[in-house]
Order: sequence, then structure tokens, then C-alpha cells
Amino acid sequence: MKLIIGNKNYSSWSLRGWLAVRQSGLHFEELTIPLYGEKWDQAKRETGEIAPSHGRVPVLWDGDAVVWDSLAILDYLADRVGRDRFWPKPDDARAMARSMVAEMHAGYQALRAECPMNIRRRVAEHSLSQEARADVVRILTLWAEARARFGHGGPFLFGTFCAADIFYAPVVSRFLTYGVRVPGFAEAYMQAVWEHDWMGAWIAAAEAEQWRLEQYEGPSAA
Amino acid sequence: MKLIIGNKNYSSWSLRGWLAVRQSGLHFEELTIPLYGEKWDQAKRETGEIAPSHGRVPVLWDGDAVVWDSLAILDYLADRVGRDRFWPKPDDARAMARSMVAEMHAGYQALRAECPMNIRRRVAEHSLSQEARADVVRILTLWAEARARFGHGGPFLFGTFCAADIFYAPVVSRFLTYGVRVPGFAEAYMQAVWEHDWMGAWIAAAEAEQWRLEQYEGPSAA
Ligand SMILES: N[C@@H](CCC(=O)N[C@@H](CS)C(=O)NCC(=O)O)C(=O)O
Ligand SMILES: N[C@@H](CCC(=O)N[C@@H](CS)C(=O)NCC(=O)O)C(=O)O
Repeated sequence: MKLIIGNKNYSSWSLRGWLAVRQSGLHFEELTIPLYGEKWDQAKRETGEIAPSHGRVPVLWDGDAVVWDSLAILDYLADRVGRDRFWPKPDDARAMARSMVAEMHAGYQALRAECPMNIRRRVAEHSLSQEARADVVRILTLWAEARARFGHGGPFLFGTFCAADIFYAPVVSRFLTYGVRVPGFAEAYMQAVWEHDWMGAWIAAAEAEQWRLEQYEGPSAA
Repeated sequence: MKLIIGNKNYSSWSLRGWLAVRQSGLHFEELTIPLYGEKWDQAKRETGEIAPSHGRVPVLWDGDAVVWDSLAILDYLADRVGRDRFWPKPDDARAMARSMVAEMHAGYQALRAECPMNIRRRVAEHSLSQEARADVVRILTLWAEARARFGHGGPFLFGTFCAADIFYAPVVSRFLTYGVRVPGFAEAYMQAVWEHDWMGAWIAAAEAEQWRLEQYEGPSAA
């Protein structure tokens, strides 16, 4: 299997796809195409790695099978290795996890636009629109409910690391980068995500990257 | 099980959720909350049927388990009745079907904004932005590829009716309503979807509805 991703520092959907592949436990090769550089334009033009997705990352190649889009990748891998590795077992918990992931996949446009993922960056103060603040409140509400109902003493949303944590990992990064104030339970959760082994490996790689995309580096960067 | 939906004439995500429930073969009750009317505001305020989704439809209640978002509903039902009822069996076909569904779920913003679903309406001419036209081309390309590689002589994208047809059903409606010109293979596919039993039942119900939402009834309506 081969996973095509963008820069680790900036590509939030790549992070989701990459965590999903790690969670599957399957062996995979990793290929980075730095976003919006020369290689990117070339990759988009050629009928190569990112053609099936119409020039987006992540893309997973599994022999002849090609899966693009982070959510499709996650569920394709769940098909391969068993659903329980990605989704909570009890119906009510899985119902909520699937809903939260789908909501993340199609939603939170304001937060995503105003706070692009940038793992290296730390912003002292960042003012959010009303819509983005509503997104933050909605996310914190979902986190609180998942933890309270299904956390069962584990550090993650549904106790152990699952699809929901994978999908909200870039949000954790955004909250940290842009100094979003969160209640204590959320701080603890975010720390657990940040300290997860795979997340740690991703962060270290992001910090080591030399590419810099000016459009995601605002004047208020520390 | 109980499925909460919006007006059949206008609510594209409800259509997806409803087709998914029909496809599951499970027995379900159906509750319509007409979009944006008085009942809608009331339903949004109260901690009732559409509270978990933050006031969006569709929402599926399965005893204590609540699933919101059409894609989560579909995969939750696939968990219940078996994946093969919703997704193609071969890895390469399922890879593509999952990718197409995920792309629909998060994408095609221009087409969705410029051509809101309105089953009853017929527009003689409708000019699309460049972005919406690009969405149309992308969709037709995906349909063509799915039909050519995995259609196996059946009338639907992957031969028999599956998750991909469910997710693109509102697009079929949009193409018809807004008179989008499509090649012959796509016309045949769209007709197959339109004549599918469940689709027929949905269309008949949409036509019988008395609610009218002016924002989706432009001046160019026939
Ligand atoms: N819904 C897709 C979104 C993929 C996506 O938009 N990826 C971004 C990078 S994070 C990208 O490839 N952007 C390049 C472009 O749109 O040209 C997914 O979940 O994978
Ligand atoms: N991603 C959701 C979208 C649901 C959605 O936006 N539904 C619309 C009706 S088609 C809605 O409830 N709109 C009401 C609102 O946003 O207030 C899904 O797939 O179910």
C-alpha cells in the first residue's frame, strides 16, 4: 500500500489519512508531494498518483484499488482489518462516533477557513468570526458529550484511540496553534492526542519540514 | 427505528438518509419536519428529535442510539445489515464507491449552492458559474468511469443500486431540474435512478407536498 500525502505541517486531510493507515496496522509506503509547489502542479497535470482524486491528497493505493478522500480511506481500511479497530463496538457509541466524524468531514467551514492547520505556528491572539466561534462551541460540546457518555476513563473521546480522534486531530492542532481557550477536560484530551505516539511522529516530521507556505503564515505568528 | 427528515421536495440530505434506510430493508417510522417553518424553529429550540444534530436533518433514532448526518446513517445501517447491501464487494469497486460518496459528502459546493434540489421544478435554462460547471464535469467523469469499469451491464453506477447511487440521487434530480446537458450514458443512468421504486415513491410524495420555499423557486421556473 502507498499513501500519498501533502506537507505534514499544513495538510490536515493528509494527517487524517495517515493516522488511519497507522491505525490499520498495515504496512504502507509514504509519498509526500509538497502542496502547491512545482511538483504539485506537475503531479496534478500528469495522470499519476493524485489524478484519481482530481489533484487532492490524501490518496491511498492498494494494488489496483485507489481510494481518495480521508473518510473513504479510513472506512476502506476498516473493511480490510475489521471495523473494531476504528469504531467503537456498542451501537450507541458507534452511532455518535460515526456522526461526529461525518460532521467534521463536511462541516466547520468557518473554523477551517480562519484557522488553517499549521503545526509549527503559535499565535498569541487570534480573533474568530461568530461562525468560527460557533464551530468551536459545537466541537467542545460534542467532545464533552462523547467523553462523558463513552470515555469510560480512557483519555480519548471514546476511551481508546479511534476514528473520532483521528478526525478531530487537526482540530486539536488548530486549537493549540490559534490559542483557542478551552475548558480543562478539553485541555486534557488535547494533550492526550498531542502525546499519542503517531501524532508525535507526525509533529516531529512537520517541524523538520523546510517548505513554507506564506498564505498560512499570518502576521500574528509568534 | 425512526428517521427524521425535511420536506421531500427540497431536502437533498434527507433523500440520501431515506434511501439508505429503504436500502437497509429494516422497518422504520418516518417523521417529517418541514424545513424552515414554524415547526422547524420549534424543533430546533427543543431538546427533541433534531437536537443531537444541532438542528439538521436527516437524523436516525435506533432505540437509544442516535445517528445524524446522511453518510453516518448509511454506514451505521451497513453495520447493522451487512456491508454488502450498501457497498460493492470487490476491493477496487468499493474503493471507488467509497471515494465517490465521500467526495459528494464534502464537495461540489458550487453546484449545490447554485442548483438547490427542487424535485417539482423544471427550469428551461439555467446558467452555471465556472465552478459549478467544473463540478458537473467531475461528476460526469466519475459516473462514466464507474459505469465503464464496474457497471457490469447493470443500470446503476456499480451495476446494482448501492451507496453511490444513493449519494448521487439528488444530483440526478438537480441535473433534471436545471436542464443540465449530459451525454447519453448519463441520461440512461439518470432515468434508471428516476424510475427506481423508492425514488418514485419519494418523487410522488414531493409532488404532493404543499409547502413552498420561495428561496428555492427562482424566476426562471417553468
Ligand atoms: N474531502 C477530502 C479533502 C482533501 C483536500 O482538500 N486536501 C487538500 C490538502 S489538506 C488538498 O489536496 N488541496 C489541494 C487542492 O485542492 O488543490 C478528504 O477528506 O480527503
Ligand atoms: N452533512 C449533513 C448535512 C445535513 C443538512 O445540512 N441538512 C439540511 C437539509 S437538506 C438541513 O437540515 N438544513 C437546516 C439547517 O441547516 O438549519 C448530512 O449529510 O446529513
